[in-house]
Amino acid sequence: MNRTIIIEKKGVKINNPILIEGLPGIGLVAKIAVDYLIKKSKAQKIAKIYSPYFPPQVIMTKKGIIKMPAMRIYLLKGKKNDFLILAGDIQPNDINGQYRVNEDIVKYFKKKKGKLIITLGGYGTGNIKNEPVIFGAATSKELVEKYSKLDIKFGQTAGSIVGAAGLLIGIGRLYKIDGICLMAPTQGNYIDPKAAFNLLNKLLQIMELKIDTQELENRVAEGEKFIKKLEEMAEKEFGQLKSSSYKTKDLTYIR
Amino acid sequence: MNRTIIIEKKGVKINNPILIEGLPGIGLVAKIAVDYLIKKSKAQKIAKIYSPYFPPQVIMTKKGIIKMPAMRIYLLKGKKNDFLILAGDIQPNDINGQYRVNEDIVKYFKKKKGKLIITLGGYGTGNIKNEPVIFGAATSKELVEKYSKLDIKFGQTAGSIVGAAGLLIGIGRLYKIDGICLMAPTQGNYIDPKAAFNLLNKLLQIMELKIDTQELENRVAEGEKFIKKLEEMAEKEFGQLKSSSYKTKDLTYIR
Amino acid sequence: MNRTIIIEKKGVKINNPILIEGLPGIGLVAKIAVDYLIKKSKAQKIAKIYSPYFPPQVIMTKKGIIKMPAMRIYLLKGKKNDFLILAGDIQPNDINGQYRVNEDIVKYFKKKKGKLIITLGGYGTGNIKNEPVIFGAATSKELVEKYSKLDIKFGQTAGSIVGAAGLLIGIGRLYKIDGICLMAPTQGNYIDPKAAFNLLNKLLQIMELKIDTQELENRVAEGEKFIKKLEEMAEKEFGQLKSSSYKTKDLTYIR
Amino acid sequence: MNRTIIIEKKGVKINNPILIEGLPGIGLVAKIAVDYLIKKSKAQKIAKIYSPYFPPQVIMTKKGIIKMPAMRIYLLKGKKNDFLILAGDIQPNDINGQYRVNEDIVKYFKKKKGKLIITLGGYGTGNIKNEPVIFGAATSKELVEKYSKLDIKFGQTAGSIVGAAGLLIGIGRLYKIDGICLMAPTQGNYIDPKAAFNLLNKLLQIMELKIDTQELENRVAEGEKFIKKLEEMAEKEFGQLKSSSYKTKDLTYIR
Repeated sequence: MNRTIIIEKKGVKINNPILIEGLPGIGLVAKIAVDYLIKKSKAQKIAKIYSPYFPPQVIMTKKGIIKMPAMRIYLLKGKKNDFLILAGDIQPNDINGQYRVNEDIVKYFKKKKGKLIITLGGYGTGNIKNEPVIFGAATSKELVEKYSKLDIKFGQTAGSIVGAAGLLIGIGRLYKIDGICLMAPTQGNYIDPKAAFNLLNKLLQIMELKIDTQELENRVAEGEKFIKKLEEMAEKEFGQLKSSSYKTKDLTYIR
Repeated sequence: MNRTIIIEKKGVKINNPILIEGLPGIGLVAKIAVDYLIKKSKAQKIAKIYSPYFPPQVIMTKKGIIKMPAMRIYLLKGKKNDFLILAGDIQPNDINGQYRVNEDIVKYFKKKKGKLIITLGGYGTGNIKNEPVIFGAATSKELVEKYSKLDIKFGQTAGSIVGAAGLLIGIGRLYKIDGICLMAPTQGNYIDPKAAFNLLNKLLQIMELKIDTQELENRVAEGEKFIKKLEEMAEKEFGQLKSSSYKTKDLTYIR
Repeated sequence: MNRTIIIEKKGVKINNPILIEGLPGIGLVAKIAVDYLIKKSKAQKIAKIYSPYFPPQVIMTKKGIIKMPAMRIYLLKGKKNDFLILAGDIQPNDINGQYRVNEDIVKYFKKKKGKLIITLGGYGTGNIKNEPVIFGAATSKELVEKYSKLDIKFGQTAGSIVGAAGLLIGIGRLYKIDGICLMAPTQGNYIDPKAAFNLLNKLLQIMELKIDTQELENRVAEGEKFIKKLEEMAEKEFGQLKSSSYKTKDLTYIR
Repeated sequence: MNRTIIIEKKGVKINNPILIEGLPGIGLVAKIAVDYLIKKSKAQKIAKIYSPYFPPQVIMTKKGIIKMPAMRIYLLKGKKNDFLILAGDIQPNDINGQYRVNEDIVKYFKKKKGKLIITLGGYGTGNIKNEPVIFGAATSKELVEKYSKLDIKFGQTAGSIVGAAGLLIGIGRLYKIDGICLMAPTQGNYIDPKAAFNLLNKLLQIMELKIDTQELENRVAEGEKFIKKLEEMAEKEFGQLKSSSYKTKDLTYIR
């Protein structure tokens, strides 16, 4: 396999699509949000992506069937726009693979006459507790203005957006495609369903879509208990740990 | 050398072939099984594979002749099917090389009108003693059903199959070629002739072939003595070591 | 993105250009000098360079806009020559990327009928204090003679010039383009505005250009205070530290 | 620079050439032997080789001139055969580069209608003192027989020949070009002019050529003194160090 290949289901009609990315990354927040969205909205799988830049192995399922590491594109029909949702097992490991795979996805999206890419990610803070704010970064001033009205906070983050969440909108911009990255603050070392929940809610607001989020809320509640335990342990050992001590300038890592 | 090259012997007729892979991997079980099969069945070498993804060196033989690191394909004529046996010195080290070399082999096999790939491997357990079970993973439900009848255990392993044993059937599937991987549980850090022997027996059953396995059994017996010594040493130091404590859920690593 | 791309502003006329490189490198001396030159001379941005050999991420600006890691080319109109100034956020990390990106820049410059490349760099000495000398290395004897007259010291450095500062003139030479590298001695582990200032002054002399350097001098003065503190601390601990002990043969590292 | 380039001097006639390789490797024995041969035989430089697989830097000479890392080919006219001598600053670092550069050299040589490649190398023993024997490895039984008559020892070495010394004859073989590698035993961690001297003498015997070797003998004598000192120091510390304890089976590393 010399190049990334996108295998499409035939005869699928796509109308004025918006691309939504939720691949594995920091805190798995993007992946959790998007996998949940696909499940509950019953989006339809319309393409698989394989690449020589993915890990050289196959994954065994519970039934003894193997599958190649892949990204998948799902179609969710909407009113004004259709949504193409990019989910998957992995991101490419090396620099060249990141550029090549992400450009191939942008090219695919351009062919479908797509005009907006929304990427999701976690914004690492190092803190266990995080405000339910959603940060944003976009490819133009106009987008910053538009999405600020949806209470997305722009210009409060610094540093870089690594991987697909960054490159898809960066390369997209070169193809004259609008792009916005939504980031939920998260500790960084733990899987964070709560940040994923916040991210998903903001995404649904943008999509003007409603889905049943109860199951994810349950996971969040379990996660909360786990974090509460961590805090109690920390308090015992280090004294009072004020979660209110969270400050935006403490944010240190972004992806 | 920019690309992998396959140099074929001329005028060889191949009838309805099944590809069997036994390259170096965990416990060397696949390599031992397949090299032994080639030797005893007097399979005929029909192709050599060289690649810029192999180590950049030549190997010196006892007679002072040099040879490039290579994979080799052997032909064993059968009743219903011919067998193409893939053996070799090495696997490509890097991700890209793995994808490229394995796809080139699948393409070669597709040209020969092959319809089934059987890959062999060890399944790392971390335990010195392992049951003589053979695990399987396959590219379709139908294959799982068919080979379950031969007492191959599907769905009892988890994780990934790394390298040629995984990618050949994973990429093969994209080319509409059936694939099955047979795995013998093995400790993981030692060369394991016994696991190779078990693997070979199951393979011979599938191939409907009989060969003299005495020589390999002798190697197994020697290996057993070595393992017994390890156990006695361990018992002295750590007390009772029950080999019956082996449980499927302890399995941790697969290749 | 498979290849490096250079996106040019349309309709720009370039007359007999000299290329000046100031990318990030040792002590950031080249980058500081060239970024300052661009700012004060109001050079006009005429091209952006993106590459799959740059880091796979986007950078967030203060206003929430993202931008891809890039090199940029600025045009400064001159009397006899125009100047194309190469600045940027990064250099490619890997060997192949270095050769490819730098050759693409040389090809671009050749198309513009360029005949001279001037690269800038720091020359690592390991010493905190360095003489305000400028070292040079060039692609021909004639250039060595010509620029020796401007009090640039040739043949007093040894070793290699790593990265764009070296490869641009090395590859340029293969394209029959003259090249000279100007190097300011610098400690190597610290950002060094003073070395950048010396380098800029020599560059301005070659360019026959005057700009207001006051702001950079202020930064140098601040840097001096910092270095003075380091020296006082060192004196307290290790006794007299004579900055006059600097000798050319102590120079050890170049970039 | 996307590919390796070979820049040839025009109008050079080459008659029935033999390729001799002496690039940097273990103990620098091949490089010392070949650089000395070029100097004393006044072989004529006829080609330069540049590659994106060489280090991304330029080298500064004493006169302030820069040069790209390169391999060079020299022509030495002979009676029955001309000799093309491959010398240089470096070998490619990565696997792919090794295969690509060496195949490009083999292709160049094939175009010149070359039929024999002689590569030189050190054979690491770990011992300070080594017998003045020359080991060989070749691409065919016929070559082993032919060169055994010149007192080259075949079949007494084991392992791999890494890099150009191995790949040139390995790849050459695929192009139907004969190949032989001459190896001088050497400690492995030190530059070894004595092994280079032995290697050169055997090479001159094969080439049926005489050159003045006095200067190299002087370097050997200096090297001997250095080794004698090492031995005396070792004797003082560890007691008697018998150099006669050298045994062929101790040989462990080859390049």
